[in-house]
Amino acid sequence: MREFYIHSEYDYTINEVKRMYKIIVDAFGGDNSPIANIEGSVDAINKIKDLYIILMGDENIIKEELNKHKYDKSRLEVIHAPSVISCDENPTFATFHKKDSSLMMSLDKLKNDPEVSGLVSLSSTGALLVGGVIKIGKIKGVLRPACCPLLPTMNHEIVAVCDSGANVDCSKEELLQFAVMGSTYLKTAYNIESPRVALLNIGVEEIKGDNLRKETYPLLKESNLINFVGNMESRDLLSGKYDLVVADGFAGNVLIKATEGTSIELLKLLKKTFMSSFKNKLGAALLKSDIYKIKDFMDPNNYAGALLLGLNKIVIKGHGSSNARSVYESIKQAYYLAKNNFIEKLSNDISEIVSQ
Amino acid sequence: MREFYIHSEYDYTINEVKRMYKIIVDAFGGDNSPIANIEGSVDAINKIKDLYIILMGDENIIKEELNKHKYDKSRLEVIHAPSVISCDENPTFATFHKKDSSLMMSLDKLKNDPEVSGLVSLSSTGALLVGGVIKIGKIKGVLRPACCPLLPTMNHEIVAVCDSGANVDCSKEELLQFAVMGSTYLKTAYNIESPRVALLNIGVEEIKGDNLRKETYPLLKESNLINFVGNMESRDLLSGKYDLVVADGFAGNVLIKATEGTSIELLKLLKKTFMSSFKNKLGAALLKSDIYKIKDFMDPNNYAGALLLGLNKIVIKGHGSSNARSVYESIKQAYYLAKNNFIEKLSNDISEIVSQ
Repeated sequence: MREFYIHSEYDYTINEVKRMYKIIVDAFGGDNSPIANIEGSVDAINKIKDLYIILMGDENIIKEELNKHKYDKSRLEVIHAPSVISCDENPTFATFHKKDSSLMMSLDKLKNDPEVSGLVSLSSTGALLVGGVIKIGKIKGVLRPACCPLLPTMNHEIVAVCDSGANVDCSKEELLQFAVMGSTYLKTAYNIESPRVALLNIGVEEIKGDNLRKETYPLLKESNLINFVGNMESRDLLSGKYDLVVADGFAGNVLIKATEGTSIELLKLLKKTFMSSFKNKLGAALLKSDIYKIKDFMDPNNYAGALLLGLNKIVIKGHGSSNARSVYESIKQAYYLAKNNFIEKLSNDISEIVSQ
Repeated sequence: MREFYIHSEYDYTINEVKRMYKIIVDAFGGDNSPIANIEGSVDAINKIKDLYIILMGDENIIKEELNKHKYDKSRLEVIHAPSVISCDENPTFATFHKKDSSLMMSLDKLKNDPEVSGLVSLSSTGALLVGGVIKIGKIKGVLRPACCPLLPTMNHEIVAVCDSGANVDCSKEELLQFAVMGSTYLKTAYNIESPRVALLNIGVEEIKGDNLRKETYPLLKESNLINFVGNMESRDLLSGKYDLVVADGFAGNVLIKATEGTSIELLKLLKKTFMSSFKNKLGAALLKSDIYKIKDFMDPNNYAGALLLGLNKIVIKGHGSSNARSVYESIKQAYYLAKNNFIEKLSNDISEIVSQ
C-alpha cells in the first residue's frame, strides 16, 4: 500500500517540534471501544512527536486503561463525557439531545477550540455527519459534505470512493464537487500528484449510463481541477487503474459493500475449505503465511477510516470494527491532513469551482 | 445449486413424447462461438428427448462442426444466416440494418413461427433487447422488459437480480413489475414456491435509501403477488437469504459487476499466491481439488444466462464467455420455461398488477 510520506519524519527529536497538532479521539462508539481507541491513541503519541491527543469519554474508564501504557503524558489529555451515542439512534435526535455524549462533546470541542484540527470517531456515520454539519459547518461553497473511504487494490495501492452513502439523490454539480474534494484529499494525504478520477458507470463508453451520469460526464471532462480518466465499471474498482471513483451515495454504497462483502464471503469459504479435511489442513499449513498476507492486505483495519469531505475541520469516521491499528491509521491521517493545511487547500479548490 | 426438477423426467422414452419444444440457438456472437453453441445444442438434444433445436448462422461452418457429433438429426435443424452482429455495434442500427445476421434472423423466426417458444443468444445484450422489443414485442401491461441474471450464493443456491442493466432511471411501478416478473421466473424455472424478494438498498431499515427506494418499499410491501422480505444491502447478495433482488438497472449493474469482479480478482490473487514458491505449490497441490470446486461453483458457465423478462416469447442472453456447458444450461432453461407455460403465467401476473 502507498504509505504516508511522513514516515521519514518520525526521526526528528522533540527539540525540533515547532508546533503541536491537536486531534480529538472519541474514545467510545466502536465495537472494540474504548480499548482499541486508547491503544491506537497511545501508539500515535509514541510514534508522532508533534501530535497532541484529546481522548473524549468516560474519564474513569479511560484513565484506568491508560494506566496500562507508557507514553508522554504531556501530550495526551482526557476530557470527561459521560454518555455514548449508539449506532441505532436517530442522528438528528442525538445531535440535539445527547449533548453530554463523547461524540457531541468532541464536535463541540472541535468547533470551539481553534487549536484543535481534527476528530477521529468510530461512532454512527449519521450522527457524525448531522452533528458535523450543524456544529462544525460546511466549507463555503460546498453543496453537501461527502463520505470518502479507502479500499486496498490488487496492486497494493488504494482507491477512494466518494460518495459512499452520505448523499443519495445527487446532482451533477455535487458529483463534480465530490471529484474535486476527493482529489484534494488524495493529493494531500497520499502525495498522489494527479489522482486518476473515474465516474462509476455501467459501461466505459461516454454515452453510457442514466441521466445523472450522462450529465456529469461532460462536467468532469471539462474541469481543469481534476484528472478525469473516464467511466469505470464496478468490476474494475480493485484493478489499481483508478485513484478516486465518483458516485452518488446510493451507487457508491452498493459498490463498496458489494466489493467488501464478496471478499469477506470468499475468504470465509476458503477458510472453511482449508479446515474441511486433514489433507486440506496440511496444504493450508504450507500456504498459511502467504494467505495471511492476503487477508491482512484486504483488512480494512490496516487503513484509515473514511474522511468526511467538505466540513470546516478534519473529521474521520473510523470503521465500527476498528482495532488499535486502524484507530492509529485514522489519527495519523487526521494529523497529516492538519499538518498539510488540508482545509485551506480544500477551501481554495471549492472556491475555484464556485467561481467558474 | 438448486437443480431444475426435470432431471427425473429425462428417463421417459421417445414414445412418450407428446409434443416437441422448439428453441432457436443463435450459433454466433459469443467468445467461443460457434463451437460452444453447437456443442451445447448437441448436448441438449441428446439429454432432452422432447427438444427440437434450430441453429441459426453460417450453414457451412455449422454443418462442418455438427459432423463431428452424434445426435438425433430429426430434432436439429440449421437455418442459414450469413452475417453476425458484433458487441460494439449500435443496437438500433443493427436491428434495422443487419437483417441477415444470425441474431435478427433468430428474432424474426421466433416472431413468425408459432411453434418456436424461445431463443438463446450470446450476442450483444443491447441488440437482443432492442431487437426483442421491436420484433417480439412486450407482454401486454409490461412497462419495460428487464434483464434477470443468476448468481451462485455461498450456500450453493442461486440468487437472481432484476434489473441488471437494461433499464436505468426506473420508476417505482417498474421496480414492482421487476419483482413480480422475477418471482414468476423463479417459481417456474426453479420450483421455488415463494421466492424471497429483497429491495437493493443502502441499509435494511424501511426508511433507508433515496427517493426511488422510499417510494418503492411500500409498493413491494403491499403487493400480494410477491413475498417481499425487506431491504438488502449489497454485501448480503451471496448470503443465500434472498432469491430475488430488485434494483434499477444502474444499481443492479453496479451490484453484479462488483460482486463478480471481486470474486475474479481474489481468485486470481490466490492463484498467483499458490504459484509463488515451491512450498506454496506443494500446499496448493494438496488443496487443488477443493479449490477447483470453489472455482467451479463460482463459474458463471455452470448457470443459465440472463432471462429477458417481459417479452412475448422466451429470450435468454447467455454470457458472452459461455462454454458448451453454459449454452446447454441456457437451452435447458428456455425449454423448461416453455414446457411450463412461463409466458402465459407471466401475462396473467402482469395483468393482475395492471388491474390492481
